[in-house]
Amino acid sequence: MALGEFDLIARYFQRPQRPLTGAVALGVGDDCALLQPAPGTQIAISCDMLVEGRHFFADVDPATLGHKALAVNLSDLAACGARPLACTLALSLPHVDEAWLEAFARGLFALADAHDCQLIGGDTTRGPLNICITVFGEVPLVGGKSRALLRSGARAGDDIWVSGTLGEARLALHCLQGQLRLPRDVLQATRARLESPTPRIALGLALRDVAHAAIDLSDGLMGDLGHILERSRCGATLDTAAAAGLLADTAAQAVPGADQRLALVLAGGDDYELLFTAAASARAAVQAAAQQAGVPVTRIGRIEAETGLRLVDAHGQPVTGRYTSFDHFA
Amino acid sequence: MALGEFDLIARYFQRPQRPLTGAVALGVGDDCALLQPAPGTQIAISCDMLVEGRHFFADVDPATLGHKALAVNLSDLAACGARPLACTLALSLPHVDEAWLEAFARGLFALADAHDCQLIGGDTTRGPLNICITVFGEVPLVGGKSRALLRSGARAGDDIWVSGTLGEARLALHCLQGQLRLPRDVLQATRARLESPTPRIALGLALRDVAHAAIDLSDGLMGDLGHILERSRCGATLDTAAAAGLLADTAAQAVPGADQRLALVLAGGDDYELLFTAAASARAAVQAAAQQAGVPVTRIGRIEAETGLRLVDAHGQPVTGRYTSFDHFA
Repeated sequence: MALGEFDLIARYFQRPQRPLTGAVALGVGDDCALLQPAPGTQIAISCDMLVEGRHFFADVDPATLGHKALAVNLSDLAACGARPLACTLALSLPHVDEAWLEAFARGLFALADAHDCQLIGGDTTRGPLNICITVFGEVPLVGGKSRALLRSGARAGDDIWVSGTLGEARLALHCLQGQLRLPRDVLQATRARLESPTPRIALGLALRDVAHAAIDLSDGLMGDLGHILERSRCGATLDTAAAAGLLADTAAQAVPGADQRLALVLAGGDDYELLFTAAASARAAVQAAAQQAGVPVTRIGRIEAETGLRLVDAHGQPVTGRYTSFDHFA
Repeated sequence: MALGEFDLIARYFQRPQRPLTGAVALGVGDDCALLQPAPGTQIAISCDMLVEGRHFFADVDPATLGHKALAVNLSDLAACGARPLACTLALSLPHVDEAWLEAFARGLFALADAHDCQLIGGDTTRGPLNICITVFGEVPLVGGKSRALLRSGARAGDDIWVSGTLGEARLALHCLQGQLRLPRDVLQATRARLESPTPRIALGLALRDVAHAAIDLSDGLMGDLGHILERSRCGATLDTAAAAGLLADTAAQAVPGADQRLALVLAGGDDYELLFTAAASARAAVQAAAQQAGVPVTRIGRIEAETGLRLVDAHGQPVTGRYTSFDHFA
């Protein structure tokens, strides 16, 4: 028997009433949810839509899909230095598959609970598989000024930093798309990065009073750095030797050519690490924040007043190459 | 030439920076938007997903679709007595059709501007046509208590009221689905109700201090009233003669049988009128609120302590009939 829409919501997404946290005044079940932000805070909001065949394969494990759909949204909160509060989920499903729904909800709630991010509402309908999550986070105001990390805050002289390692997600994607072959264990390891990204929430919070600007790496390092440069009206020089060091070991061992390796770092995507800028005088503070968050960070370049993005090698000599970022409509 | 994702967002959905209203601290263009609610307010949040072939026909006028996608969300704010502040738009498109996008954005922004509802973020991707809008509204706290109208506020003895007229949207849908024939002018008039619903924002605001409970009629009167009864843990008696009077004249003239007419009212859908309850002592206040909002209201029954929904005729005699509400997975 097919579950009705309302039963479906109740069974998988409406959990026993949890103690309402400070900010969530009303959760699932009414026309609207109600958020009541703490005095002196702003609400950071982001929204991502995941489509079958575009953002994930039809046969993806539904639990990892539930994780990823929320993770890519939490990653936007991380990039703003926002503390997660709540989310809504809109879900279009071709049919009601209870095993799929159970696993999807399990994956989603595991990540949500890890970040105290309460599901407060949403919508379900029949249609091609589509997952749209909107997340809400809290950012403090200090002296009336927002502490949110923005793309527009980079300043000439800032260092450019990237968290963690890059390239595995894109490598796995190339393999799954049949563009290259990988040993089974390498595919398994890199596929985990593609399908279960880790939103850098703790790092975003730790950087709130240290970094000047931040963005999460979803479309590729060069493209995403480009967004910071555009919004901050400045340019940058990027040290490709330092950037090459960001490549995850698994990926480095699987890709023979130095150019291909660099391309994976510069034009990869789906890494969900943070790229951020901070004053050169704040290097110790950046390292302390990274240590507090338990994620390594690497310095890969410098923000400059002159617009444009300049790639240089270890000797400061210009590097040429075509490393474009991922664009859903290109 | 295909537009890139970012150009597309910029061209159609990122308008010249408007003066930021009090609550919108940062709009489109960063990882997150930032809302800064006024002190002593809550944020009401609702989210609806519209899928081609399910919620609209593939050949629908894109400007009316832009209107409807936002209208159904604003209707949820209206049902909570919330004042619209902002919205996000996630859009999955099979291909970039600039004429379609221009018209869709025009329809959406016309309604958004009419309600000072600023587009503050979203996502675009390639995929089957899917529109997911999340809206944000403001509800005051008075003495620390939320003034939001909820489904759970109905009390035994309350009158049950409905705004406007019902049935046209469902009648048009039946005709467009080939289940019945309508004269061209009747189809045109009723189709406007289906495709361009009017969110009852002003009425919701005017009822905030008058009504006890409210819901917007999206799935049909009986089903939506059922939600109020369930959440308020009470029952109701519904006067079918009074309810029959809610049928729009256009629809009444086109439908010959009294039973069919009543079914359109009780089990229609897509009307986006408000159903609300208020104390019997507040009848004058309800009428004053309706007059202030410029929309008629009709009293159709009473909330009772005994659970269940009882239909009676003009003489108080029980009426039987099967009038189910719309369910996307039934």
